[in-house]
Amino acid sequence: MNRKIPAPSDFVVDADDIRSAADILRGHAILTPLLEYPVLNERMGGRVLIKFEGAQITGSFKFRGAYNRLARIPAEAKAAGVVAWSSGNHAQGVAAAARLLGLAATIVMPSDAPAIKMANTRALGAEIIAYDRFTESREKIATALAIARGATLVPSFDDPFIIAGQGTAGLEILDQARALGTGVDRIAVCCGGGGLVAGIATAVKSASPETEIYSVEPAAFDDTARSLASGHRETVSPDARSICDALLTPTPGELTFPINRALLSGGLSVTDDEVRATMRFAFEDLKLVMEPGGAVALAALLHKKLPRTDGVTAVIVSGANVDPGFYASILTEVG
Amino acid sequence: MNRKIPAPSDFVVDADDIRSAADILRGHAILTPLLEYPVLNERMGGRVLIKFEGAQITGSFKFRGAYNRLARIPAEAKAAGVVAWSSGNHAQGVAAAARLLGLAATIVMPSDAPAIKMANTRALGAEIIAYDRFTESREKIATALAIARGATLVPSFDDPFIIAGQGTAGLEILDQARALGTGVDRIAVCCGGGGLVAGIATAVKSASPETEIYSVEPAAFDDTARSLASGHRETVSPDARSICDALLTPTPGELTFPINRALLSGGLSVTDDEVRATMRFAFEDLKLVMEPGGAVALAALLHKKLPRTDGVTAVIVSGANVDPGFYASILTEVG
Repeated sequence: MNRKIPAPSDFVVDADDIRSAADILRGHAILTPLLEYPVLNERMGGRVLIKFEGAQITGSFKFRGAYNRLARIPAEAKAAGVVAWSSGNHAQGVAAAARLLGLAATIVMPSDAPAIKMANTRALGAEIIAYDRFTESREKIATALAIARGATLVPSFDDPFIIAGQGTAGLEILDQARALGTGVDRIAVCCGGGGLVAGIATAVKSASPETEIYSVEPAAFDDTARSLASGHRETVSPDARSICDALLTPTPGELTFPINRALLSGGLSVTDDEVRATMRFAFEDLKLVMEPGGAVALAALLHKKLPRTDGVTAVIVSGANVDPGFYASILTEVG
Repeated sequence: MNRKIPAPSDFVVDADDIRSAADILRGHAILTPLLEYPVLNERMGGRVLIKFEGAQITGSFKFRGAYNRLARIPAEAKAAGVVAWSSGNHAQGVAAAARLLGLAATIVMPSDAPAIKMANTRALGAEIIAYDRFTESREKIATALAIARGATLVPSFDDPFIIAGQGTAGLEILDQARALGTGVDRIAVCCGGGGLVAGIATAVKSASPETEIYSVEPAAFDDTARSLASGHRETVSPDARSICDALLTPTPGELTFPINRALLSGGLSVTDDEVRATMRFAFEDLKLVMEPGGAVALAALLHKKLPRTDGVTAVIVSGANVDPGFYASILTEVG
């Protein structure tokens, strides 16, 4: 991996953008807890800090980027509203931010998205347009809609304000760890399009260059891991499947990948079975609900995918929107 | 209810005892998070702060009192170890505290205690002696054992150090609320034998006399509510049943009741169906695992049992040790 730390100006987002996002989010986003469990420290032989974005508005980190993006829409563009596509968490983040800011939101969602994500998005007042994830292009549907209405398109990761908003979670981790009297040696972050990990890497590397950042993906969607290895953007097979519905992005983002290529220490991946075991562990020992995609960073830690676990490791639990029936089936499976 | 605030010396525990317990617990117990969710604030029309003791060591508040009690055992009594009885959370708290302090622990547990509680207690190194909750007396079994071995008996609520230890959660609520820029108008606390609510009331009334404290019980085990109404210790029917396995205490404690009679603003109760609905709400909207007994205070809030919900209401979620199969059945029931 390339560990060179380039000047901030090399990228679309720098630490100042993330501090600005933190200012915009103050009083709107939740300062989610950074949790520590002796049982987990003991198991890993090091200190583990869990940033629990399940407690964020809409149950995932996505509100951060969405609110930061929507808050920047110029006055004259507000009336036409916003259009986004999303498997569910970005949908809810955009819908919640739009409601707070008084904007109309239309979200293009796959017809097989978790019911809880569709219901919550609708409950937040957004219009939902369903599409078939295997035969239709959400980008085309959403772009056509945005053009027809003059609405602002809100990408789920490839946007400087989205990346900066997600990066605020990284600032909080450093601040909260400092309040616990420690720095952070490494951070594991889930990765779909790479917006969260790019934002966190930008925030953290600026303030704490020696902290290592790792992306974690479902094994079948390891495009960022393979792209980090090859140096250019790889794409997963169209036949790839995973229970991690939030992380089914086939290729790294155009804006996120250059950041991640420069700043990450490695790309890790976990199997769906490792994710299931981690969701059960989180239920039994941490008492936290995690959705599959939200559990991958902790899964990587528990399954020893990180090169080291001594010192202090932070893991992001990025979301917890999971259908009760599916969650129940995971709890009662024989692990 | 009696709202008179007696001098601390009227009771077995005062605010100094709780501050002393906080000193003993520092670095051993977890400073559990005080969580706030806009979706809950909006629903209740006031600010709601959730003290999540599911993140405490052993998954419930019981570690607080147990550690404070065991840490006070004189050097010459340590070798004989400790004996306790418990449906499960106190068992784990005592076992964990004993392990940290290098003491042998024996716990008398009902044979129908949740499997997760028995397994965790055993995993913490305690010896378990099972008894039949409907035909045998746990007090007699435990007392006989303690006498035979010269061991220290560790009551689950009727002990000044236990009450003081549990009260540290109250100090933390006030401190954490202050950090959020607010006081607390009322606190709802689950109640079995009344140790947690007595400790919290002692801590909170001393620092913030205008904060109202409410106990919350399962409807079939409303002995504290009825005792507060009648002014003396009432007992529930021996046929009483509830899914709240942590709160199946038939009568208020000898030491806890005088405190609660003097300091509480009321005794509330909730049905098992209200508890089930609350556990589902906590899963879907808060992303927190709660056991039935741990959810009663939140259930009282959600089901409008508190006289008011404006201003700031804190609720204790006291524990989250629930068997996965039972939890799965609650999630998939039609609410």
